[in-house]
Amino acid sequence: MWSHFNPVKIFADVSLFEVLPEYLPANGALLLVTTPGFTRRGLTKLLVDKIDSDRMLVCDNVTPNPDLTDLESLINEYRPLNIKTIIAVGGGSALDTAKVLSVAIPSSYKNPLTETLKDGKSQLWNESLPVICVPTTSGTGAEVTPFATVWDKKSGRKHSVYGESVFPRYALLDPSLTATLDEDNRLYPGLDCISHSLESLWNKNRTAASIANALFSLELALKSLPETMKNPGDLDARRNLQHASLLAGLAISQTKTAIAHSISYPLTLYYNIPHGLAASFTLKAILRSIKTDIFVSEGRIEEILQLLSKYDLPKRILQYLSFDDAEKCLPEMFLTERGNNFLDIPTTEMVRAILLNSF
Amino acid sequence: MWSHFNPVKIFADVSLFEVLPEYLPANGALLLVTTPGFTRRGLTKLLVDKIDSDRMLVCDNVTPNPDLTDLESLINEYRPLNIKTIIAVGGGSALDTAKVLSVAIPSSYKNPLTETLKDGKSQLWNESLPVICVPTTSGTGAEVTPFATVWDKKSGRKHSVYGESVFPRYALLDPSLTATLDEDNRLYPGLDCISHSLESLWNKNRTAASIANALFSLELALKSLPETMKNPGDLDARRNLQHASLLAGLAISQTKTAIAHSISYPLTLYYNIPHGLAASFTLKAILRSIKTDIFVSEGRIEEILQLLSKYDLPKRILQYLSFDDAEKCLPEMFLTERGNNFLDIPTTEMVRAILLNSF
Repeated sequence: MWSHFNPVKIFADVSLFEVLPEYLPANGALLLVTTPGFTRRGLTKLLVDKIDSDRMLVCDNVTPNPDLTDLESLINEYRPLNIKTIIAVGGGSALDTAKVLSVAIPSSYKNPLTETLKDGKSQLWNESLPVICVPTTSGTGAEVTPFATVWDKKSGRKHSVYGESVFPRYALLDPSLTATLDEDNRLYPGLDCISHSLESLWNKNRTAASIANALFSLELALKSLPETMKNPGDLDARRNLQHASLLAGLAISQTKTAIAHSISYPLTLYYNIPHGLAASFTLKAILRSIKTDIFVSEGRIEEILQLLSKYDLPKRILQYLSFDDAEKCLPEMFLTERGNNFLDIPTTEMVRAILLNSF
Repeated sequence: MWSHFNPVKIFADVSLFEVLPEYLPANGALLLVTTPGFTRRGLTKLLVDKIDSDRMLVCDNVTPNPDLTDLESLINEYRPLNIKTIIAVGGGSALDTAKVLSVAIPSSYKNPLTETLKDGKSQLWNESLPVICVPTTSGTGAEVTPFATVWDKKSGRKHSVYGESVFPRYALLDPSLTATLDEDNRLYPGLDCISHSLESLWNKNRTAASIANALFSLELALKSLPETMKNPGDLDARRNLQHASLLAGLAISQTKTAIAHSISYPLTLYYNIPHGLAASFTLKAILRSIKTDIFVSEGRIEEILQLLSKYDLPKRILQYLSFDDAEKCLPEMFLTERGNNFLDIPTTEMVRAILLNSF
């Protein structure tokens, strides 16, 4: 038995500043969750001016890989303010922060993240604030998934806030927002997108619908990622990569991720590797060793391998850690739910070999 | 700008009789909408016995291509009975009948179909009863679309009831229900499924998401339709064709159909041709003449043409009408919204040539 459900209303190829007002409630406080960079580029001010600025609160201190303690402070800060809708503009961390706030603020728990993620209480997110997700990088797919990653750096753990009420209400894709991304912020999310497609294809939870989304996402990303790397001014390429990211997000919203992400989590925790790099530097080795049919033709697999060879991933990963460092994390790498989603049931030897072939 | 939204909760590869109770409300009257055939095969009784029979009403006189007058009678019959959920089990006509009832019963209009479809009042379907769609043929995709076809045979018109509230609540796919279909009821819906994929690909409303669904639907249907035609006992093939039908339904739920369906409507009205045959006998000619890129490789197009050649469609269509008969319907064939969805803007000459090459 398999199921498929994704209630996010998606509007693509829009101009954020023109359309955003249509998706806001007539009254009540709004919370904009975004990054320092968005503010620095003057875009937060533009957005606030465009909307009724009296009712717009701004939280623009989101940093990569949001931490449980920081998130609990934000929950306490914004809980009393009677927020009606959250607008999230940024990469995966901004979107995930907004999604966490949307269910944690109305929750009846006093410290919702500590009580559910650490103390093991049920994630009964009965209520949620509507979230409007506006991705400014292309790759995370967080605009359409029913989960958000919460890092607990103190105790060295990665958690997931999840459930149907974590789905954003709207995803607004504006390709102009990705025009100013630097090379790393084009490459790493783009690789994350390819990782999502592949992870959903070699996933024991795959369905006809997730396969459909993953296959076309791959087709779009294989063409548009190299194009945007070469020429960030190429609007069509940026648009296609945004669509690829969305489709891969739809795919993992059903399957969740698998072995490549499972391997990445301890590396991100201990070595602060950018998520997209950590989740993709092993893809080539996995793709070469995979035994299950993943519905991708040999020619297409060859194209993926070529793309993954193009950006010196082993060299990039070595800036953060060595194979020996990675090997020490082995026990934490594949004993997770995500690791067990991998159709080729993972063993220590298999994961060690994947790592060895990825440096 | 494009949008994507489909809130149907899909459960596939289930056993209807086991899982149905989970999706029913605890209290209130239920209405089963199904076909005489389902009752004849003893399945209506089985289902009613499985559920609390005291609260289950049965409407089992659905016939192909539901007519406006018949539907208005059903609305009047069931309106006073305080129905809480509708269960639709059957082919496209049963599912469409249930979807029409779900919005028409709670509507404030006295004669909802006459007032909206004939008198031109707004289709403001503010409320709807939850519908559980259980397709027993593989091809219509009606289990996931936000529209239902209503035929007005008296005035010779085809209407569409549509809107977000027309979306079913649940789609339950049970492959065992397609085991007893005769040859025509395997072939024609299967061809309808292929028509839906192609129609959404050469459609001006196509999106990254609709393309993803259509392409994988085609891949599944090209393999599974011939398999189920050869061996109706092949459970895997039936399952895959059911998935293909679902994906094509997801695709047209965004794009609607196009030229092949537009051509089919007057033929169905005047010659009572089975919908799947009427909507597919022109596909080969359209596919051969299409100028727009539809994301399908040449090899795959060749496979589709071969499949469409396999089942003597010209011979089958000649049992209902001649080219001369069809030609007389030309003016009604392409001046509809669906016709104008076709990316190669249709002209009378183009449609005449398509027809000529389809006999």
